Amino acid sequence: MNVQDISVGQYELVMYVFSFCVSAFAAASLFFWFGRSQVSKHYKTAMTITGLVTFIAFYNYWRLYDSWVATYHIVNGALAATGVPFDNIYRDSDWLLTVPLLLIELILVMRLPRSETVSRSWTLGVAAALMIVLGIPGGVSDGVNSTRLIFGVLSMIPFLYIVYSLYAGLGESIERQPDSARGLVRLARNLTVVTWFFYPIVYFLPFVLPMSGGTPTTVVQVGYAIADITAKVVFGLLIYQIAVRKSEAEEGRNA
Amino acid sequence: MNVQDISVGQYELVMYVFSFCVSAFAAASLFFWFGRSQVSKHYKTAMTITGLVTFIAFYNYWRLYDSWVATYHIVNGALAATGVPFDNIYRDSDWLLTVPLLLIELILVMRLPRSETVSRSWTLGVAAALMIVLGIPGGVSDGVNSTRLIFGVLSMIPFLYIVYSLYAGLGESIERQPDSARGLVRLARNLTVVTWFFYPIVYFLPFVLPMSGGTPTTVVQVGYAIADITAKVVFGLLIYQIAVRKSEAEEGRNA
Repeated sequence: MNVQDISVGQYELVMYVFSFCVSAFAAASLFFWFGRSQVSKHYKTAMTITGLVTFIAFYNYWRLYDSWVATYHIVNGALAATGVPFDNIYRDSDWLLTVPLLLIELILVMRLPRSETVSRSWTLGVAAALMIVLGIPGGVSDGVNSTRLIFGVLSMIPFLYIVYSLYAGLGESIERQPDSARGLVRLARNLTVVTWFFYPIVYFLPFVLPMSGGTPTTVVQVGYAIADITAKVVFGLLIYQIAVRKSEAEEGRNA
Repeated sequence: MNVQDISVGQYELVMYVFSFCVSAFAAASLFFWFGRSQVSKHYKTAMTITGLVTFIAFYNYWRLYDSWVATYHIVNGALAATGVPFDNIYRDSDWLLTVPLLLIELILVMRLPRSETVSRSWTLGVAAALMIVLGIPGGVSDGVNSTRLIFGVLSMIPFLYIVYSLYAGLGESIERQPDSARGLVRLARNLTVVTWFFYPIVYFLPFVLPMSGGTPTTVVQVGYAIADITAKVVFGLLIYQIAVRKSEAEEGRNA
């Protein structure tokens, strides 16, 4: 990225968004972990993992923040490049762990039979990891080229398999959820699919629009942050609500 | 290691793998420690120690990351050596604590009679510490020489004793584990032995292949990371599953 192309305002906006995310993800982790004591034992692992997802995001946004700060100096109101590259790849490092865990937290909060939990966690978890790993060669190759195109298309195969599974196989299990939780589980599933579409759109955008320079960089970084907050914190709050409602319903049945 | 021999891509790959390990080990520790509340009191110490092993790895991978970053600068897309050496010895510092603890977590989750737990923890723990300490003089002497050979061979004596014990003495105790856990305990034991063989292979590899330069360095560092994640996190997840299953089985028996 060329230093002439980004304004001081854009640079600072991205920096503050990264810092905001550091605090929001840390706070979310603590909220989810404290929430463990307010759900029944069947949902504690789901809450542990919900907090781990935001914890891993907290760590990686800290790294992104440090890397962004190291990329430029602001001296007397003007930006000067330090020559150190911005390490956007911390996002891939984050997703490789968090994307499988996000699917697993949805599966866990559904409290399916143990064998179904294990098999769905494995197939969806492996598909999610494969999707991220296949995206990396294209992600690190800056700009428009065949590597980006080929690995992008390959990465879409597990992505579409996951979307299909969330509506077909797992979709049937969602329809068998208790009344008090079914709507929220459906919402969590739909939120996952909608927010996840942001990532391939950004991935393929360079083929359509020129993506170098300050404005596209700022839009993409802020957009990723909004997508990550939605997919991890808002999604996690839904998981927590589902766990609370199901715990209450199950306690009521036992009383 | 010569700066001309490593590419920017290899340098960044190792850096990201170290960062990935930092977040994965920290997340694993939290998962294991939260898991303490989901196992019976007999398995809480095993879960504490499982989390300590990944916690110590989290710390040492943070040091490895910082040391790796301090070894080179990337300025305007080119690598420049800073002259600061890369401190691979943090690995030995990690193993000296974690390798005895890994054996002790396996022994604890088996819930043997107290005297057997104590005696096996001592003999296997001391053998593991001896194995690591004997490896250090050879590990710090770069390349092919008699120090590496002599201490490598000495270090193999406790290593082979541990492998023997895991199948002979402790192997008999494994066969007396309850049905619900026996297969998993066997799997944990086998995973230990298989992953641990990676370390002496890397240790003796310089006698067979030239190991300086970017490609061997990258392969070894990424290989160590995969072996460490498998031996500590995947192994720990098995320990957790064993603890959960045995807790459930024992609760059922008391009810």
